[in-house]
Amino acid sequence: MGMRELVNPHILELEPYTPGKQPEGPGWIKLNTNELPYDPPEAVIDAIRLESTRLARYPNPTSGKLREALAAFHGMEPSQVIVGNGSDDILNLLARAFSGSNRSTFDTFPSYSLYPVLTAIAGGKIQSIAFDEDFSLPVSELINSGADLLFLTCPNAPTGVRFPLEQLKALAGDFSGVLVIDEAYAEFAEGNAIPLLEEYEQVVITRTFSKAYGLAGLRVGYALSTPEIVEILDRIRDSYNVNRLSQAGAMAALKSQDIYSKYIQEIKQTRQWVLSELEELGWKVYPSEANFLFAAPVKGESGAGAELAASLFRFLLQSRILVRYFPKHPLTASYLRISIGSPCEMERFIEEVRKWTRTA
Amino acid sequence: MGMRELVNPHILELEPYTPGKQPEGPGWIKLNTNELPYDPPEAVIDAIRLESTRLARYPNPTSGKLREALAAFHGMEPSQVIVGNGSDDILNLLARAFSGSNRSTFDTFPSYSLYPVLTAIAGGKIQSIAFDEDFSLPVSELINSGADLLFLTCPNAPTGVRFPLEQLKALAGDFSGVLVIDEAYAEFAEGNAIPLLEEYEQVVITRTFSKAYGLAGLRVGYALSTPEIVEILDRIRDSYNVNRLSQAGAMAALKSQDIYSKYIQEIKQTRQWVLSELEELGWKVYPSEANFLFAAPVKGESGAGAELAASLFRFLLQSRILVRYFPKHPLTASYLRISIGSPCEMERFIEEVRKWTRTA
Repeated sequence: MGMRELVNPHILELEPYTPGKQPEGPGWIKLNTNELPYDPPEAVIDAIRLESTRLARYPNPTSGKLREALAAFHGMEPSQVIVGNGSDDILNLLARAFSGSNRSTFDTFPSYSLYPVLTAIAGGKIQSIAFDEDFSLPVSELINSGADLLFLTCPNAPTGVRFPLEQLKALAGDFSGVLVIDEAYAEFAEGNAIPLLEEYEQVVITRTFSKAYGLAGLRVGYALSTPEIVEILDRIRDSYNVNRLSQAGAMAALKSQDIYSKYIQEIKQTRQWVLSELEELGWKVYPSEANFLFAAPVKGESGAGAELAASLFRFLLQSRILVRYFPKHPLTASYLRISIGSPCEMERFIEEVRKWTRTA
Repeated sequence: MGMRELVNPHILELEPYTPGKQPEGPGWIKLNTNELPYDPPEAVIDAIRLESTRLARYPNPTSGKLREALAAFHGMEPSQVIVGNGSDDILNLLARAFSGSNRSTFDTFPSYSLYPVLTAIAGGKIQSIAFDEDFSLPVSELINSGADLLFLTCPNAPTGVRFPLEQLKALAGDFSGVLVIDEAYAEFAEGNAIPLLEEYEQVVITRTFSKAYGLAGLRVGYALSTPEIVEILDRIRDSYNVNRLSQAGAMAALKSQDIYSKYIQEIKQTRQWVLSELEELGWKVYPSEANFLFAAPVKGESGAGAELAASLFRFLLQSRILVRYFPKHPLTASYLRISIGSPCEMERFIEEVRKWTRTA
């Protein structure tokens, strides 16, 4: 039998996830994967250094101390917390537990393009409910979907729009499946969905150290839910999914809230400044509560459109400024997703945008 | 619908993997999970420290440089290498690609107890071919199994026995499925299965940095195979499965072969010493090419047996010496699996064994 006949057909057929570009060389302004533009706090680096002498031994298999610290931080029980090798690890466990050929899985469009891939790897096929142009939450449609599993990003990516808590409550109250609220960007927002966990038993909230904690390179994420759902995910979690350095680094980061508060404050200020600059140029920009802006470039008299977005994307690339462009869908093709970097990086970005505006 | 009805039934039914105990406190002699008893080389610690300042950025999504370095080390192409968050990550990808409800998956018994769990999570059910007491490779039985996927540990765990290359060739030559040879302990052995990769297209060899490289806490493993199989596994691999510190640490470890050669030499010498001590006490010990011994305790006139093994296991535990005991099967119940620690640790171990031998 040939090798390809041995592979599960749904694995052969799926379209793999495409991560954002991670260029290695210097000189890039990287505004494409929503990383934090600051180095880790010294306390994180020190904790990693200390732990690096202990690498001969396996990690704690449950990330036990980190679960306790996260539970205390959120005022919850350790049994309500699971830690992953990035929140992608936990999203994958959710797909394995609740998706498949006999399960209906939904997300909204546009959102994190990993959900369809994880669903496909689990043998299922995701169905997407498209947003309107105003990106309000289609509560009734989502409830009526009858989904066994729903992935919802809030604040949404790529728009940055946060759905009001009342709408999330309305959804959770009448939704019969498992509702995953992916809060990768919640630390930049003015509210979050954690209050839902007290009222609704089928809600899972995922969080990450990759964005507001500036530790994308460390791969730590976590989820908050009921002990019952955590136990299900733990059944299929790799026993040593989070390495010693990641556990130690995340613990130290969690204790460095003072530093992160300042970072987050600066990101929000910079976001506001970039937003006002772009609006002054006549761009359509969604009101973002994340560390990025979803914005449709305009130039001269012409309105926004896919050609302009593609043109600016290429122009910026030539200046070694990376932003994210999703050309495949009418809802996204006229927009660029721009991560909020340091003030200096964003001044350079705006400068290049102005240059592009003046080109023929 | 209740939460449990939403879970895939095969996830609810499976028995999760039980990792070896990882006690946190000091004072333990830990001979239960085949870790190396030495701290990481300074070069590894330094590489991790340097990389820890760069954690704001996502890791290289393919572990590209590490793949290149591993390929060069083994005289192969980078397209033949995949890197995982521990080799468990890669074993999991193999189960997802080649196991399932419509696939037949086999292993041998006893071997690594993770294989049945990974198969079950993938919706399949593993079938085990039991070894005879001499632990020779049941070549014809394995060929005739018609398995789509076969997991084979070589040197075997828990016995440490290595199967001769000629037998592995005979198996690979007539086996029609994907043959995974898990070489977690190959660096301690006098030979390995890498020559098979030149001849047979459906062989996958998995390796780890957890054992001979002493980096169990860092979670890095890899597999060597054909570009075609690597491409299949990459389709379903998490894009950022190996964090920055793990990639940097493993690179530095790979360059520290001089140090590891000495460590491995010392482990082999200690293994030989422990073996001769135990044989002098009349124990049955399998000839191990790994960093552990599988040995059946005896005491006084009585032959080996499950009661004696259990008794010594408990006796050692009271002295804070952890070894591994698999009481559930007749083939393993009379034995303990004893990792080879430092010379000092093994002297303490032998001392306690002698004490136990003198108890009533």
